[in-house]
Amino acid sequence: MAVDLTALVQKNDARIVFLIADGIGSIQAGPNNLTELQQARTPNLDGLAAEGECGLMDPVAPGITPGSGPGHLGLFGYEPTEFEIGRGLLSALGVAFPLKHGDVAARLNFATIDKAGNVTDRRAGRISTQENVRLIARLRAKLPRSIDGAKIFLETEAEHRAVLVLRGKGLGDRLHDTDPQATGVPPLAPKGLDKKAATTKTVGIVRKLVAQVGKILADEPRANFILARGFALSTKLPSMADRYGLRAGAIANYPMYRGVASLVGMTLLDPGDSLRENVGVAGKHWREHDFFFIHFKYTDKTGEDGDYDAKVARIEELDAAVPALRDLRPDVVVVTGDHSTPSKLKAHSWHPVPVLLWAPATIRRDAVTEWNEVACAAGGMGRLPMTLLMQLALAHAGKLAKFGA
Amino acid sequence: MAVDLTALVQKNDARIVFLIADGIGSIQAGPNNLTELQQARTPNLDGLAAEGECGLMDPVAPGITPGSGPGHLGLFGYEPTEFEIGRGLLSALGVAFPLKHGDVAARLNFATIDKAGNVTDRRAGRISTQENVRLIARLRAKLPRSIDGAKIFLETEAEHRAVLVLRGKGLGDRLHDTDPQATGVPPLAPKGLDKKAATTKTVGIVRKLVAQVGKILADEPRANFILARGFALSTKLPSMADRYGLRAGAIANYPMYRGVASLVGMTLLDPGDSLRENVGVAGKHWREHDFFFIHFKYTDKTGEDGDYDAKVARIEELDAAVPALRDLRPDVVVVTGDHSTPSKLKAHSWHPVPVLLWAPATIRRDAVTEWNEVACAAGGMGRLPMTLLMQLALAHAGKLAKFGA
Repeated sequence: MAVDLTALVQKNDARIVFLIADGIGSIQAGPNNLTELQQARTPNLDGLAAEGECGLMDPVAPGITPGSGPGHLGLFGYEPTEFEIGRGLLSALGVAFPLKHGDVAARLNFATIDKAGNVTDRRAGRISTQENVRLIARLRAKLPRSIDGAKIFLETEAEHRAVLVLRGKGLGDRLHDTDPQATGVPPLAPKGLDKKAATTKTVGIVRKLVAQVGKILADEPRANFILARGFALSTKLPSMADRYGLRAGAIANYPMYRGVASLVGMTLLDPGDSLRENVGVAGKHWREHDFFFIHFKYTDKTGEDGDYDAKVARIEELDAAVPALRDLRPDVVVVTGDHSTPSKLKAHSWHPVPVLLWAPATIRRDAVTEWNEVACAAGGMGRLPMTLLMQLALAHAGKLAKFGA
Repeated sequence: MAVDLTALVQKNDARIVFLIADGIGSIQAGPNNLTELQQARTPNLDGLAAEGECGLMDPVAPGITPGSGPGHLGLFGYEPTEFEIGRGLLSALGVAFPLKHGDVAARLNFATIDKAGNVTDRRAGRISTQENVRLIARLRAKLPRSIDGAKIFLETEAEHRAVLVLRGKGLGDRLHDTDPQATGVPPLAPKGLDKKAATTKTVGIVRKLVAQVGKILADEPRANFILARGFALSTKLPSMADRYGLRAGAIANYPMYRGVASLVGMTLLDPGDSLRENVGVAGKHWREHDFFFIHFKYTDKTGEDGDYDAKVARIEELDAAVPALRDLRPDVVVVTGDHSTPSKLKAHSWHPVPVLLWAPATIRRDAVTEWNEVACAAGGMGRLPMTLLMQLALAHAGKLAKFGA
């Protein structure tokens, strides 16, 4: 059974840094049949590993491939199966939409339907982002500001992807997707998952909206319809301050990670243009925060691109930022990822992520002397659920009191 | 979800011995930067490890530092977050007070208050145990035997620490501490955490008691007041006989561990004066019991003292007791601790404890050939919650039937 940390949390001056290399974990590939971490030259990370403790962690559960939301929730100690961030919410966070409590967000795809009303392309031929911006401007100009008292917001995400946000009283998110997940059939009509008032009200709004969008876009050659997925109500998660007594600061360049960080109550710090600069940002705010989340996107991006060599290079860039991080004299450093993104698979995967925990005052050194997935499997940490990482970091920072007499 | 062992338990003649070295786990320190277990010469424990299976276990959960109560509950297979032993109860067990079901126990500190009624010293200058005995005798002589129908028991623990036990019908333990955890402020008035009858009744008794103690001790120069903490109702835990079908015997020299053992229904056997003698005690009672808990305190005590060399020496004393234990021809031997107590930290810690499971008839030998924390990280057992240790021991003793057809 999980321990109630709030009863044990004690504050002190210790500083914890989570250096998160998105999608860091991998499987063997490349000229030497090694993971990118095995292939990369990482003297500084290996040094941290030799002085620290290593292991493997499952962001959600063994065999489960995490989305970016659950992956990060796990890192921050929030059980991803308990705290869900719906797809719509994640998309809204991803475009830095200033969500308010009670907003309902959905992910939209521009799509193509034929004269019979059947979907012929669920992504409208993957239109360009520029085309998406034009379409959103057209919709904004012609749609009413609000429907049934709910304000309508539409935002471009990228290519065929957009975001819908509804803002009003008494809205709900218990709606089926309208994306039929197939071609040759019509889009699904907006429909509720239950008969509650909030659901019914929201279904009504979405029906009217979809109908009007269909009319406005009728003359478009490709993007003549929208499909909605992942309706999600914006709800406040318990903050890291409440759960752990931490004054947490987030340094992330991509809106989605800034969004997830702000969902758990982190202060968003202005990022620099490189990981090295972002370590400097942590240093600049060193007195104001006792927890820093530094996000590095490019280990995921290169993995998704299937670019083995580029991922190796990005890992070496990660490694090069370590000395500056050590110069800040943190008490606890964690280096890991939110999930694996093997370049061989060009996608997120379920493989557990390598974890490195460095805490000179309290660590039990294990036998691991280099930081990669295979070495970590023999680490002192063993294989643990990712949700336990935060309490381990808190323990090593001296921020947890004894349990029981 | 946990398996219901009671449905699987089967009795046989196999003998299980739990040799518990309190606070055994550690982190690197000392002249060679090794843990005390790595540093100590332990040929007999290494022999058991080579023939057996090793691993790391978390007494409560990763990152959580266990008190002695939760640590031992975990060893005996009782989920520490489910079965809590309050501080008052542990103190009463620690002085070998013969608790009855329904008693309420609290830990008392003798304290100093000034003329304005503010606490000036929460520990009354850490008075001697001898002084404590005198004060308790004085209170016993002047206090009534009972208040509002509840009998009053006061016992010296050590230095400024004492124990209060209330015995009567309808008492509760939902009381705030009266220790304000600060000086310069008055003691907190006894107050309930809820409005239930048992709470209200107990609050009333404690109020009268505290007032009378204040009058009796008014002329004392230092220990002129008492502060109460950790009110705890004595409740019976399910016994090891009921849960596992075991006739368990406990051999422990310190009252608190005898107390925890009696809470789970073990028979308390008269201990000898050394670990070696205590192994002999197990031999003497070999026919009467099929489970023996042998407690060795000094690996914890030397850790708490921060005495690296002394802890190494105590580990070598532990090692020296192994041949006599093997001579008893047990079927299953477990060697581990209830938590880590690194001498570098001079306190209990959250680091997982090394576990050794020896069972010649059924073990799957792993690659571990020496018994220490780093070697155990590569053991066949992996890293497991401590609560699973008992069912592993039962399995190797042939005391668990197949689950399902």
